[in-house]
Amino acid sequence: MTKHPKDIILTGDRPTGPLHLGHFVGSLKNRVQMQETYQQFIIIADAQALTDNADNPMKVRENVLEVALDYLAVGIDPLKSTIFIQSLVPQIAELTQYYLNLVTWNRLKHNPTVKQEIVQKGYGESVPAGFMVYPVSQAADITVVKATIVPVGEDQLPMVEQTNEIVRHFNRIYKTDVLVEAKAIIPKFSRLPGIDGKAKMSKSLGNAIFLSDSADAVVKKVKGMYTDPNHLKVEDPGQVEGNPVFEYLDAFDPDTAKVQELKDHYTRGGLGDSVVKKYLTEVLQSFLEPIRQRRAIFAQDKAAVWDILKKGTERTCDVGAQTLSDVRKAMCLDYFG
Amino acid sequence: MTKHPKDIILTGDRPTGPLHLGHFVGSLKNRVQMQETYQQFIIIADAQALTDNADNPMKVRENVLEVALDYLAVGIDPLKSTIFIQSLVPQIAELTQYYLNLVTWNRLKHNPTVKQEIVQKGYGESVPAGFMVYPVSQAADITVVKATIVPVGEDQLPMVEQTNEIVRHFNRIYKTDVLVEAKAIIPKFSRLPGIDGKAKMSKSLGNAIFLSDSADAVVKKVKGMYTDPNHLKVEDPGQVEGNPVFEYLDAFDPDTAKVQELKDHYTRGGLGDSVVKKYLTEVLQSFLEPIRQRRAIFAQDKAAVWDILKKGTERTCDVGAQTLSDVRKAMCLDYFG
Repeated sequence: MTKHPKDIILTGDRPTGPLHLGHFVGSLKNRVQMQETYQQFIIIADAQALTDNADNPMKVRENVLEVALDYLAVGIDPLKSTIFIQSLVPQIAELTQYYLNLVTWNRLKHNPTVKQEIVQKGYGESVPAGFMVYPVSQAADITVVKATIVPVGEDQLPMVEQTNEIVRHFNRIYKTDVLVEAKAIIPKFSRLPGIDGKAKMSKSLGNAIFLSDSADAVVKKVKGMYTDPNHLKVEDPGQVEGNPVFEYLDAFDPDTAKVQELKDHYTRGGLGDSVVKKYLTEVLQSFLEPIRQRRAIFAQDKAAVWDILKKGTERTCDVGAQTLSDVRKAMCLDYFG
Repeated sequence: MTKHPKDIILTGDRPTGPLHLGHFVGSLKNRVQMQETYQQFIIIADAQALTDNADNPMKVRENVLEVALDYLAVGIDPLKSTIFIQSLVPQIAELTQYYLNLVTWNRLKHNPTVKQEIVQKGYGESVPAGFMVYPVSQAADITVVKATIVPVGEDQLPMVEQTNEIVRHFNRIYKTDVLVEAKAIIPKFSRLPGIDGKAKMSKSLGNAIFLSDSADAVVKKVKGMYTDPNHLKVEDPGQVEGNPVFEYLDAFDPDTAKVQELKDHYTRGGLGDSVVKKYLTEVLQSFLEPIRQRRAIFAQDKAAVWDILKKGTERTCDVGAQTLSDVRKAMCLDYFG
């Protein structure tokens, strides 16, 4: 199949922990589809992960491999997608250096996502400078491969805006068109609730089912899931909205008729949580089992996985070298032709 | 002669204009001496020049060559010193990226040199982020060659302090000693007044005699020099202190007895400014003429000058690649050994 001739996708993750069902719903699923028709670069953003983990590089290092295993396990195909390690593409740091001159200090201070994260992390004025400037580094991630499409969660929209501001500023002052603006696309299902019912599944909230969880861990986690707190007796009518058990079924059970039937039953009463949870467990196991199996195969030959990352990184460096060459030429910095 | 076995010097200039007598007195003279006994890297800091000249890259580009010609003209010998172009050493941008995580936003805001420069340039809150972080980029310049000695003007001391803070922080959290602290040395004559008598000679103040000035330009500039404003008649006693004509003689006339004689004469009265200025002109011409001649020779073969810069940059990249490898290993980012 020939790929979409013009559009290039940039997507990826910070390697700070294993990926979970929320990642699958929010991004991995789309990536597996998109790789069929688009040229897709997937960044393992280790340098960005270090902006707030500088004192814990082993965590980042170990998760580079874990995230790569998760990618391969869900079906990201290194022949169709280019997976690369951010810190091994020097052009990203070089572009960041140039872009930092095009963004004011004040603009960085007012990035809504970063502002919120600073509060969450309790940084105050002690925020690392690298963390403050990471939106500029993201602009480099996106533009180094001249991406035109960036799938993001809503909270990441300001990052794509910042990127496009830099692109326009660069092209204007250097009278060029070498950089291209990127379009943010927000997946339909962009967020999965946690097993505790909180709006977002997240490793740091401790409410995640990981793609690499064992069958036993999944059984246990589903058993402990939050449901409708007013659904005390089996015969009571239960609430389906905001009930993560049903949201997971919506996301993972291909048998939508069956899910509808369960929802109706639960709503009118007479369907116990334990029954629904048992069914959800089956659904999740049949979703996760092939992922686990593929993960186990890849995990047996880690050298092969590193080789995939190495090749993807080399390919990205080739593309990045061309971009940097275009950029330096536009800036009159092509000293040696 | 064998060079000092341990110490490595990092010094250099922002390519934003031709170099002048103030540069010679403050740094070039020392570099010509130091290259005999030290391993010396001289950075043409084009990337740093762009932090406040992003919209005028041609100015930076053109001055890379002019500064290189000034270096060669005063006797910096590419066989003894390594002259390199900052933006072509990607390891500097890469180290900057890691160092930014070790410096707080707040710390950057309170760098006294940068604070003062922001006021001078009238930036306010619109200061480019690249300008705010340039002290971190300087730490990368210094550490990329593992420099142990950095000759600086007093106003640049906070930069070396910032560098050493980063070095200690890095070595502490990554339990390593791959980075080394640098010692700032302040040259005895670190500052030459302008021809207008202002404390510092500077291109932007329009009070400079450039190393590349023609003989005629020097005659004209010396004629117009500020002297003792109370020395109205030849017979009046004149003041030598704070009189740039005599400060220039101190700096450039090897005949110190003659200078002392002139000072005594001027102080007791009976020596006209025009006579001293005529003598200073002769002193400066005999200092500048060989520089002009060497400059003219190098300027005839610009390709050879670019080749010198290319070779110096390649050599610095080799050293930088080793430093980055050490740094990444210390950070556990040596994915592929």
